[in-house]
Amino acid sequence: MVPKVNVTEKFELFDEAWSPKILGDLNDFHVKAVKCRGEFVWHDHATEDEMFYVVKGRLRILLRDGEITLGPGEFAIIPRTVEHKPVADDEAHVLLLEPKTTVNTGAANSDRRLDALDRI
Amino acid sequence: MVPKVNVTEKFELFDEAWSPKILGDLNDFHVKAVKCRGEFVWHDHATEDEMFYVVKGRLRILLRDGEITLGPGEFAIIPRTVEHKPVADDEAHVLLLEPKTTVNTGAANSDRRLDALDRI
Repeated sequence: MVPKVNVTEKFELFDEAWSPKILGDLNDFHVKAVKCRGEFVWHDHATEDEMFYVVKGRLRILLRDGEITLGPGEFAIIPRTVEHKPVADDEAHVLLLEPKTTVNTGAANSDRRLDALDRI
Repeated sequence: MVPKVNVTEKFELFDEAWSPKILGDLNDFHVKAVKCRGEFVWHDHATEDEMFYVVKGRLRILLRDGEITLGPGEFAIIPRTVEHKPVADDEAHVLLLEPKTTVNTGAANSDRRLDALDRI
């Protein structure tokens, strides 16, 4: 049988900020859940487009030419090579959809890089 | 600037059932919005995995070995080659994430096949 995934229940399984968890695979893509609190680092991805879909809270995505704010039920797709810096002033629960090759910090030299992600 | 997409607003732009609309591109994937009412056809996709994320209403996905029911904030990924038949007893608003090569009716011989999808 195919499992169903309740997103709210998945977000109850972890608390770390900026540490995406893999919820599922589809072809060469991953679906991930990430809790955002405070500021992440400026970065871009050389070859991967990245979808941010907000489930709860508000996520600001700073861009070099402006800023977008996403609330529940809103998403944005950050194209490859576009620098961005996610910020959540409180906490935001976000689904990420992106190629499996995507590294959280992209091309940035950052100690927040994660080379292996848990599955939940 | 990167656009943001409000999913509820997108669903207000069309009414046809079983006619997915493209909301965005990310690498070789599309994000689509589809209104489901009544029964679709049994089908599978030879090479594409397909994610159904329910935004509103309830979606049943019949499988040859059972059935899953998805409500708001729930998703399932139907793996390639797995036969499925989506059914919405009332109306469900669903986000689809799938490779751009995906045809709505998959390998089924059906007059509900759509060869070109609108973008909204």
